Amino acid sequence: MPVQQEQPHSPPSEIIDSSSSSTCDDESWVWAQIKAEARRDAESEPALASYLYSTILFHSSLSRSLSFHLGNKLCSSTLLSTLLYDLFLNAYSTDASLPCAAVADLRASRLRDPACTSFSHCLLDYKGFLAIQAQRVSHRLWIQGRKPLALALQSRITDVFAVDIHPNVKIGKGILLDHATGVVIGETTVIGNNVSILQHVTLGGTGKVGGDRHPKIGDGVLIGAGATILGNVKIGDGVKIGAGSLVLIDVPAWTTAVGNPARLVGGKEQPKKHQEVPGESMDHTSFISEWSDYII
Amino acid sequence: MPVQQEQPHSPPSEIIDSSSSSTCDDESWVWAQIKAEARRDAESEPALASYLYSTILFHSSLSRSLSFHLGNKLCSSTLLSTLLYDLFLNAYSTDASLPCAAVADLRASRLRDPACTSFSHCLLDYKGFLAIQAQRVSHRLWIQGRKPLALALQSRITDVFAVDIHPNVKIGKGILLDHATGVVIGETTVIGNNVSILQHVTLGGTGKVGGDRHPKIGDGVLIGAGATILGNVKIGDGVKIGAGSLVLIDVPAWTTAVGNPARLVGGKEQPKKHQEVPGESMDHTSFISEWSDYII
Amino acid sequence: MPVQQEQPHSPPSEIIDSSSSSTCDDESWVWAQIKAEARRDAESEPALASYLYSTILFHSSLSRSLSFHLGNKLCSSTLLSTLLYDLFLNAYSTDASLPCAAVADLRASRLRDPACTSFSHCLLDYKGFLAIQAQRVSHRLWIQGRKPLALALQSRITDVFAVDIHPNVKIGKGILLDHATGVVIGETTVIGNNVSILQHVTLGGTGKVGGDRHPKIGDGVLIGAGATILGNVKIGDGVKIGAGSLVLIDVPAWTTAVGNPARLVGGKEQPKKHQEVPGESMDHTSFISEWSDYII
Amino acid sequence: MPVQQEQPHSPPSEIIDSSSSSTCDDESWVWAQIKAEARRDAESEPALASYLYSTILFHSSLSRSLSFHLGNKLCSSTLLSTLLYDLFLNAYSTDASLPCAAVADLRASRLRDPACTSFSHCLLDYKGFLAIQAQRVSHRLWIQGRKPLALALQSRITDVFAVDIHPNVKIGKGILLDHATGVVIGETTVIGNNVSILQHVTLGGTGKVGGDRHPKIGDGVLIGAGATILGNVKIGDGVKIGAGSLVLIDVPAWTTAVGNPARLVGGKEQPKKHQEVPGESMDHTSFISEWSDYII
Amino acid sequence: MPVQQEQPHSPPSEIIDSSSSSTCDDESWVWAQIKAEARRDAESEPALASYLYSTILFHSSLSRSLSFHLGNKLCSSTLLSTLLYDLFLNAYSTDASLPCAAVADLRASRLRDPACTSFSHCLLDYKGFLAIQAQRVSHRLWIQGRKPLALALQSRITDVFAVDIHPNVKIGKGILLDHATGVVIGETTVIGNNVSILQHVTLGGTGKVGGDRHPKIGDGVLIGAGATILGNVKIGDGVKIGAGSLVLIDVPAWTTAVGNPARLVGGKEQPKKHQEVPGESMDHTSFISEWSDYII
Amino acid sequence: MPVQQEQPHSPPSEIIDSSSSSTCDDESWVWAQIKAEARRDAESEPALASYLYSTILFHSSLSRSLSFHLGNKLCSSTLLSTLLYDLFLNAYSTDASLPCAAVADLRASRLRDPACTSFSHCLLDYKGFLAIQAQRVSHRLWIQGRKPLALALQSRITDVFAVDIHPNVKIGKGILLDHATGVVIGETTVIGNNVSILQHVTLGGTGKVGGDRHPKIGDGVLIGAGATILGNVKIGDGVKIGAGSLVLIDVPAWTTAVGNPARLVGGKEQPKKHQEVPGESMDHTSFISEWSDYII
Repeated sequence: MPVQQEQPHSPPSEIIDSSSSSTCDDESWVWAQIKAEARRDAESEPALASYLYSTILFHSSLSRSLSFHLGNKLCSSTLLSTLLYDLFLNAYSTDASLPCAAVADLRASRLRDPACTSFSHCLLDYKGFLAIQAQRVSHRLWIQGRKPLALALQSRITDVFAVDIHPNVKIGKGILLDHATGVVIGETTVIGNNVSILQHVTLGGTGKVGGDRHPKIGDGVLIGAGATILGNVKIGDGVKIGAGSLVLIDVPAWTTAVGNPARLVGGKEQPKKHQEVPGESMDHTSFISEWSDYII
Repeated sequence: MPVQQEQPHSPPSEIIDSSSSSTCDDESWVWAQIKAEARRDAESEPALASYLYSTILFHSSLSRSLSFHLGNKLCSSTLLSTLLYDLFLNAYSTDASLPCAAVADLRASRLRDPACTSFSHCLLDYKGFLAIQAQRVSHRLWIQGRKPLALALQSRITDVFAVDIHPNVKIGKGILLDHATGVVIGETTVIGNNVSILQHVTLGGTGKVGGDRHPKIGDGVLIGAGATILGNVKIGDGVKIGAGSLVLIDVPAWTTAVGNPARLVGGKEQPKKHQEVPGESMDHTSFISEWSDYII
Repeated sequence: MPVQQEQPHSPPSEIIDSSSSSTCDDESWVWAQIKAEARRDAESEPALASYLYSTILFHSSLSRSLSFHLGNKLCSSTLLSTLLYDLFLNAYSTDASLPCAAVADLRASRLRDPACTSFSHCLLDYKGFLAIQAQRVSHRLWIQGRKPLALALQSRITDVFAVDIHPNVKIGKGILLDHATGVVIGETTVIGNNVSILQHVTLGGTGKVGGDRHPKIGDGVLIGAGATILGNVKIGDGVKIGAGSLVLIDVPAWTTAVGNPARLVGGKEQPKKHQEVPGESMDHTSFISEWSDYII
Repeated sequence: MPVQQEQPHSPPSEIIDSSSSSTCDDESWVWAQIKAEARRDAESEPALASYLYSTILFHSSLSRSLSFHLGNKLCSSTLLSTLLYDLFLNAYSTDASLPCAAVADLRASRLRDPACTSFSHCLLDYKGFLAIQAQRVSHRLWIQGRKPLALALQSRITDVFAVDIHPNVKIGKGILLDHATGVVIGETTVIGNNVSILQHVTLGGTGKVGGDRHPKIGDGVLIGAGATILGNVKIGDGVKIGAGSLVLIDVPAWTTAVGNPARLVGGKEQPKKHQEVPGESMDHTSFISEWSDYII
Repeated sequence: MPVQQEQPHSPPSEIIDSSSSSTCDDESWVWAQIKAEARRDAESEPALASYLYSTILFHSSLSRSLSFHLGNKLCSSTLLSTLLYDLFLNAYSTDASLPCAAVADLRASRLRDPACTSFSHCLLDYKGFLAIQAQRVSHRLWIQGRKPLALALQSRITDVFAVDIHPNVKIGKGILLDHATGVVIGETTVIGNNVSILQHVTLGGTGKVGGDRHPKIGDGVLIGAGATILGNVKIGDGVKIGAGSLVLIDVPAWTTAVGNPARLVGGKEQPKKHQEVPGESMDHTSFISEWSDYII
Repeated sequence: MPVQQEQPHSPPSEIIDSSSSSTCDDESWVWAQIKAEARRDAESEPALASYLYSTILFHSSLSRSLSFHLGNKLCSSTLLSTLLYDLFLNAYSTDASLPCAAVADLRASRLRDPACTSFSHCLLDYKGFLAIQAQRVSHRLWIQGRKPLALALQSRITDVFAVDIHPNVKIGKGILLDHATGVVIGETTVIGNNVSILQHVTLGGTGKVGGDRHPKIGDGVLIGAGATILGNVKIGDGVKIGAGSLVLIDVPAWTTAVGNPARLVGGKEQPKKHQEVPGESMDHTSFISEWSDYII
């Protein structure tokens, strides 16, 4: 199996690398697509035209559109939309990695979610996408030492999107947060590239002591709906965590863990390894036949 | 078993049919009840009178009241309440099935949820009820080909109510979405009549390929809190899915599936069948004694 | 074991008692801390100063600050912030137990959650903390017979914070609702002191019949993320419920229940008992080694 | 004088009659113009497109557009936009004279005000136009006996537009309220057709006794900026009142009154009569040479 | 003249005194009237019921109702309604003269303005009444040395009501600000009791030097629409200033000044004196026959 | 007369020139003053601190503060604050004359209005100042051919501030619009430097024909409250127009025109000339003794 393991995983790794490095080049192409989609939709749907114009067609770049949209979504009576808009605009214009990551995430949604029919749909309507972009800005503030502001932003994100990600969390590119409601990701979590996370997933800590206490998620991982991963455990590259699983210890790369408590499909000794990248294929259920005790 | 099966289920089926067909006749009676309740509450509670008058007592019909309430609940700074009100008013006035379904859902909440003490309480305060009604309108828009608008509405529903139901989902009548937070229902799901679904339930797909990939839920089904049902599986009429269950394959009618992964109560070969309609009885836990390995 | 049991639990009980009885004395000290923190943050972070001044520094007491913050958070176009502010102000000024409980909850967050770096952070940003305080006011209204208003408040709390707690629920002091999204607590639930509850936890009922039908949670209990406890079951003092567990029957004091369905760590006959207060230690995972069939 | 008077005035009277009777026929033409203008402007000005789509292009008729615009303009935190929208929609759909009068007023602005470059500009931006349309609805409510609502609407109009017209005031068609700020028109005023009124004009009463106590303004009258007309005086057809004039007694038809106190141009005995309709020509100042003591 | 003067003016003076001293006794009676009116209107007009309940019927006193109404009227995105409500509540509860003055002003509107049909109509809808009450609070803040806050309040009052009264202005009781739009009252103005001021009135200063530079208005004065009084001039008790007048020097008690520039009716040497209190009779125009050169 | 005229006016002209040319140099000094004032006020007045931080202290420059403040003031439900903020930010950052003019206007208010006690007070609270700055931006849009947007901005300015200035109007620097309510300035008006205009002033046109039809106002002019100037007339440098005057023909430089109709103080043949700059001295009334027929 070690032999088999090394061989098949080179291709997926390549795919991951290339996709994450190339995202920035196509920002203008993606933005042009978004504008074209919005124009088409505004023409066919007068009830939406106002929304499309103010949020997309009025703006000269993806960064400005996102800053505007996030400012309007996350504002409250005590945190004004104009203030947040200013904050986002400033972050996007001084940190080129932010629009790059947004483009990679847009592509991830478009490719992996069959219900995502256009880039503009994702930009406007996907709260998972928006929550991630806002967290990236809060992360930047956190790194800069502007912690109270970063935490206030986290609070608005969980109020508005029901997605609670600590500003310290380091997140890779090409992330899909599908449906997103109820996702909770703790302070010292690290998430790789091309990861897909479903609704109600918890990447949590344990105990009241601080320090490095949350999961480390590799590249290309898929975490199914309602899965709970607790503690400073390592989820290897290409791992698939079944929906509703409870994971409390490390999971080796390219394996599948399912159940409460989670077990490796194929068994602890010789777990079955897969070759596709689950974070990209989004296949949650093909392991059923292998799950020996799964019997209705 | 066929014998046993057919016999006990005739009565519940009748109950289901009659309740779902008779709902439309009593719209005016239910609306009169709601007005009377609101008037009584406005008199006894000045702090609420303003809310009750603007949302219920000002209006001449349930359709107008609902359109008004949903418009005010789902609006944002970029999707005006007046625009949404217009949209809902138009849908309710041209599609008689919408108010009928709302009445059936009101009755479902009133009958099945002991915490629901009045129709007006459900109309005003139940986000599950409101999310379902808004989805019914988004479904109508989707059928009419107004997809971007339907998706924008879905986005508002999940932002505001934390209930994410794709506009394509076909939902029967007499639905109770109890507590509702975190419910996710994917694009090709079909839900029968008199179904009750608790919070955090996922009716999801799997994989990045489109097509018919979500569960089909029969009549009278009860799906417990946190249950996850994935893939194009068939959940038969009168099925009960235990809280926290993970269901990846079909479940036969009038049986109970529990656990992660889910197993049939009574065993795969001779599952225990029940006679009451779980979607109506709301009994989540009576199967405990049958669940052999349930031992604390 | 009874002998062992009684002995080790006296200390934790003392801790519980002392912490819950002393909370009221230190309200002015906590408020002074909050003001100092807010002043420091306003100086270092201009983008947040406006928010800090309007929500904290403008006010003369914790009660007024909380009333103001909750009024602004929970208002809608049909329930004005001024009306809610009035309601909260009135409750806080006439019921001294409300600010006392708020102080105890602030201390609980500060002590138990390593991500909580200041009292002001919790006061401003923790939706679990805010949801609990608002529920305490709705509970007071419920007790006074102002049921429609209490239910309307419950509705706003679940819309805004995705936390759904019935106004009838009786909640002790020193509660931490960590992350909070998706928590659902039913009508006849009772919760003791120094309890910690994670996100997506359901304390639910079963069946459509009213009456006393929800869990009773003892002092010092810890309920992990996504756990579901259904029915009028008794969860003893100092119990730890593992993440993702499904609990349908009583759990004895100072034991740990895990899994779906939940089992006692150490076994039904001789469950392993712990000595620390899990609601305070927040230790979710130390039982892994004891969980015999937990094998990845 | 009678001879002179009758002869020249037949032509203007005809103009008045025809213009006021023909307005209703061209509603669809005017609405088509407005839509075309809005579409052109939305294309050339992205910053305005959202506003144009939500206020004009989304709607199927002038009545709906106006109802929507007035609802959004006149709403407050205690009078919701959705409630006002409903009120206006209902008035416009049941009283055909309201859209007719709006069209006549739009034409009046377009023809008489050189700064009015398009119908859509007037519809969107002219607070005088909007105040008049809202007053027409308040007048309808007043007539129907819904006096408190009519007065609440008057209050919103004067708060938002600084135009204070009592709901009892009967106003003809083809009215231009130019600039509009500060216009005050008392309860028993009657205003004819094709009248133009500039900013800061008062048509007021006197004394604290009720009854018919305000001016009666004929057809085709022009009232200059800051003019004050007090008491139940008759301002004849085709009269021109100079800017800043104070008028306390009747003014004969087709004459010009100027000054404080106002005097007839040409003298009391043989006032100079003009032939054009001042309410349409908007000529405020051609009488200078006749105003004997006007010498700087 | 002294003889004539003293004799007739005793009665009006008495009337003034008594009316201004007795206002406070009837606060509860007026508040009961207002509640009864609001209840009647709410019953007959569902469209207004929500507004009436939130603004009047919800509250336990005139002071709370006014604080609530002013907070909602004067708030902005940067000055929250809750903050202003707090400010007004605090002022009304600690300074008993404020509700007393409000009652006197309500009575003044009710008695002097034939278009004012109920106390509640004035309380809800009269921007002159509301502007005066808000200025009284700003005056209190000014006296307390809280000048920036007082000036911010002045700014909101002139934005919302188009009434610009400096916080330093000392205003008596029983004031009617009829229609109110455009009233401007400068810093060192003093206004007596039972004064009535119409729209567009300026009580202004002159020059860029500070100090006592604005008019002093006696008791019972009536100032007509658009009148301008400039400089530190004394307007005696019972004076009537005609609409549109420009007054730059003192006007003796119980006389009438009209015109631009203003002259005394009856002439400078022997001005005609009246006996009624013009601020109460509201008679603007009875002097016409005396105004020698008033000839149309 | 030419001799007399030239001699006295050289000094004032110098004052005008120097003040208008030097304004840009001191932008940073003025901004530092504003920040210091705001910091002082925020410390002494907690109720205002939130407003001062969000509007002034949060920002890095006067341009950003003004853009933010205007965006929040002028927004509506259909013209978002974020959109307007963007518009203003863009104008201020690309046209250096805009902040320069704002500084000159701030200085004008500070020097000429004794009620203006600080720069920050003017920036925050003076609707005349804010209306002028917003008009400068609308003028820039007009010049760029973005006419519909410029007109929409004009509409918001007159709704919010009751100041109606056409975007085509060319306005100099060092302008004071004192109190500002009701000011109306027509399309082809030109206004020089160091002009002061009081409330209710109309600079209007006449007739329904377009073209150059509005007043041309020289440098250093003072226009008193309620004055109306109509037609394409030339108001010379240093002219003083008395309050309430009606001016229909040219007024020579350094003279005073008063009355309705206006006459030159000193007479048409030998008008009295003054030496101070009235737009700066703000002296409205010193001409009384010269106004022969002014007799009360």
